[in-house]
Amino acid sequence: MTRWPLPEPMRRALELAQVAAAAGEVPVGAVVVKDGVIVAEGHNLTRTDNDPTAHAEVVAIRRAAAALGDERLTGCDLYVTLEPCAMCAGAISHARIGRLYYGASDPKGGAVEFGARVFAQAQCLHVPEVYSGIGEGEAGELLRGFFVERR
Amino acid sequence: MTRWPLPEPMRRALELAQVAAAAGEVPVGAVVVKDGVIVAEGHNLTRTDNDPTAHAEVVAIRRAAAALGDERLTGCDLYVTLEPCAMCAGAISHARIGRLYYGASDPKGGAVEFGARVFAQAQCLHVPEVYSGIGEGEAGELLRGFFVERR
Repeated sequence: MTRWPLPEPMRRALELAQVAAAAGEVPVGAVVVKDGVIVAEGHNLTRTDNDPTAHAEVVAIRRAAAALGDERLTGCDLYVTLEPCAMCAGAISHARIGRLYYGASDPKGGAVEFGARVFAQAQCLHVPEVYSGIGEGEAGELLRGFFVERR
Repeated sequence: MTRWPLPEPMRRALELAQVAAAAGEVPVGAVVVKDGVIVAEGHNLTRTDNDPTAHAEVVAIRRAAAALGDERLTGCDLYVTLEPCAMCAGAISHARIGRLYYGASDPKGGAVEFGARVFAQAQCLHVPEVYSGIGEGEAGELLRGFFVERR
């Protein structure tokens, strides 16, 4: 049996999630891609940076916008290992991310399929294309391992 | 007739909104208060900083958390001139803000009374007390003036 390979940006996002776990942060990783090239990476940094907004997606988006010198990441795609929360879904919309690829769904904190369903609101000014379930097994395993260790 | 005075933190948030307008940013201001003292201030900086996440609330929360050396702003209150969007409502919840005071309601982009109604979701882990309409006349006037000038 041949297992379909993960897209390279999601493979990298999973590596970043592992880096987060090693630093005691919730293991979520994200990368921003433009024209097939990774332009910024991030993982959760809320504890390390004393910053409640430093989720992987926000970190990667802020770095990408700084690197590209534009508050709008038009034409950029975001890969993240976990379904974005309301804060991150809002940031993705504000940043004009073109395509969102995420790994594990998150019934407890996600706001794409669950809860606030930010992109499904009529008032949402920019809605990305959304693809879910890419690397969800690996992403979910990392999260479960992290929270089991901390119990 | 005596007009009820604005709370001092909201008066300051309105000043910050004017500073934002003068810099070409959408005029929204925010302050974080702890034990009656302003511990951090912010206004929109998305254009200036090339940062799509730099809404007034996120800026003030990040600065407060950095100043207090804690990712959780337990016991802190946030004053902001406009109803928070989904991103900012999420950030307010993650930061464990105790009380949220806002000025103008925002049917187009707000996510407290409108749209994603982030705090009304069963999955929202921390819900602040919410007080609206404080300084809404002044806040709304600033925003209308800003957008009329840009048309």
